[in-house]
Amino acid sequence: MKKMIYLDYAAATPLDPQVAKVMSEIGKKSFANPSSAHILGRKARNLLEDARKDIAHELGCKSRELVFTGSATEANNLAVFGLAQKFGKGHIITTTLEHASVIQPIKELKRRGFKVTYSKPNKNGLIDPQDILQALRKDTFLISIIYASNTIGTIQPIHEISRLVKSQQPEIIIHTDACQAINYLNAQTAWLGVDLMSFNGSKIYGPKGIGCLFVKSGTELSPIIHGGGHEQGLRSGTENVTGIIGLAEAIKTANRLKARESKRLRELRDYVLGAVAQNPKIEINGDLKKRLPNNINISVASYDDHTRLAFELENRGFLISGGAACDAHKSGFRSDNLRVTLGRETQKNDIVKLVETIERLII
Amino acid sequence: MKKMIYLDYAAATPLDPQVAKVMSEIGKKSFANPSSAHILGRKARNLLEDARKDIAHELGCKSRELVFTGSATEANNLAVFGLAQKFGKGHIITTTLEHASVIQPIKELKRRGFKVTYSKPNKNGLIDPQDILQALRKDTFLISIIYASNTIGTIQPIHEISRLVKSQQPEIIIHTDACQAINYLNAQTAWLGVDLMSFNGSKIYGPKGIGCLFVKSGTELSPIIHGGGHEQGLRSGTENVTGIIGLAEAIKTANRLKARESKRLRELRDYVLGAVAQNPKIEINGDLKKRLPNNINISVASYDDHTRLAFELENRGFLISGGAACDAHKSGFRSDNLRVTLGRETQKNDIVKLVETIERLII
Repeated sequence: MKKMIYLDYAAATPLDPQVAKVMSEIGKKSFANPSSAHILGRKARNLLEDARKDIAHELGCKSRELVFTGSATEANNLAVFGLAQKFGKGHIITTTLEHASVIQPIKELKRRGFKVTYSKPNKNGLIDPQDILQALRKDTFLISIIYASNTIGTIQPIHEISRLVKSQQPEIIIHTDACQAINYLNAQTAWLGVDLMSFNGSKIYGPKGIGCLFVKSGTELSPIIHGGGHEQGLRSGTENVTGIIGLAEAIKTANRLKARESKRLRELRDYVLGAVAQNPKIEINGDLKKRLPNNINISVASYDDHTRLAFELENRGFLISGGAACDAHKSGFRSDNLRVTLGRETQKNDIVKLVETIERLII
Repeated sequence: MKKMIYLDYAAATPLDPQVAKVMSEIGKKSFANPSSAHILGRKARNLLEDARKDIAHELGCKSRELVFTGSATEANNLAVFGLAQKFGKGHIITTTLEHASVIQPIKELKRRGFKVTYSKPNKNGLIDPQDILQALRKDTFLISIIYASNTIGTIQPIHEISRLVKSQQPEIIIHTDACQAINYLNAQTAWLGVDLMSFNGSKIYGPKGIGCLFVKSGTELSPIIHGGGHEQGLRSGTENVTGIIGLAEAIKTANRLKARESKRLRELRDYVLGAVAQNPKIEINGDLKKRLPNNINISVASYDDHTRLAFELENRGFLISGGAACDAHKSGFRSDNLRVTLGRETQKNDIVKLVETIERLII
């Protein structure tokens, strides 16, 4: 089989070999339940708490502000449902660009009587902070905005939105889904000005099945999973020590590589964007500058069905997500798009070959 | 450091080396998102569905009757909350022997207006099927009973309860938490007669961070985690393929070893129970026969605080859970108990040494 070029890093990242190694070692030497009082339990507890400290250090927050979950989807659900349950009623502001794991919980809350305003991005896929300010109501208790879009890669001004909102209504809770952003952008929680932030392992070259919610001290949430009272009562269930240690290793590595990889991938991205911009049949979705360094999203006039384009590209050696991305359908953006997302193993010659192949396909 | 003898298998099991090997290989060769349409995504999807088939085969159920979660706690929450949300109101029967991940969701439902009957075990820790029948009401929609107690190891007559209940009110949903039972007992869902059954990896020598809920065809549940609609809409979030494959390998191994390990551990257990029964200061908690082959639970008259006893045993080389087990406090059983749970690495000489040590400590 010919070598395939993987360009779907926004869907899943390979497991970093060093992360895999650390997890495999932990799996062998520490299996006990961190709630067991004996020495093996205490050792597991220490490993878990060390990993928590490491992650807190990377985000510039406190250890006790981190709640580990089974996925980013669960972290987003905990943020939205957990806060809504505390408030009981009120108004939520979100955007049409959110991931399904924010959209669907908010839809469910709407069914239960909560009020929701959906802010729409401008034609470049950017949310205007002034639109958020205008949507504020007296009973607004939550603003949930994705830091960087998983489909068109646009980066939202969370820092600015937070400053503006908090200057008017400081008690409003601001949540961001940082899953795609955390590889490339400043995810220091204090700088961002967020009260809640979700991320996970599987998008940062870490393990699947592990997510995390940053919960700023003083932010009151109800749990969505009840039981033994783990994670300060916010998420019961025996802690996935190996997964949490893998997440810590992954985020340390991501932060270490952040500046270098962002620069390298931005150049590759801009090479593609520059090339396809010449083609009148290709439209680039999303802002050219305020977008993730690894995201390319295009619509091709001659293709109604972009899954067919993705399939044709697969036949030519590229693994890419095409067609209607699950979250794009209501965003005001074309759901017929091709999402090309770059990552650590992407090289210049892969990208040159991709551009040539697209040009040949689209005559 | 002297070799410690681990006797806390009910809290956590070591990762089976073969399970670790299978997971490590998967982690290297398959990382793609099973929702991606390209070949790597399809391969991940196939691996996932093969694992689902394997688990279904082990339980004698259909593949589409399995919902993967992040833990058994989440599976129990999905069973209880998921069903309650469908019904909206009504009556639940459970027992005072349940794990916190069943007790706490039901407590929360009680706060929300649901009616609850707590069935108490007899002095041997067994639930009487007649008590369950007598507790039935017209609006009973859920009976949730742990298959085998995580604290005193008693085995409840789920099969018999199901037959009796269903002959009177066939529409009642029966849920069992089979986490501790599945290593040793018949967990064929059809024979048990359950509609919902929870289990996980970390109690069967598999990975942490992966659980599963069997949902019998036709049983309607609402999800507790909303998003991309994975697992037939019942549990959103990118599937933890590696964890699911680890769970499949673990359950296959557990079933292969079930008869042999049950016999072997029952003999070791009965050796301990027989020995301590001679000591007037020691009381055995739970039925002597209808209990898990690997469970020993005793209370010692001269120890108010069984955490101290566990600590003294740790100083003599044994890793054991002592003191108030989190779920025992309302069961009618002494919460001051020592739980000794055996497993695959437990040998006769470990057990002989344990009995000698306990006898020496308790004069």
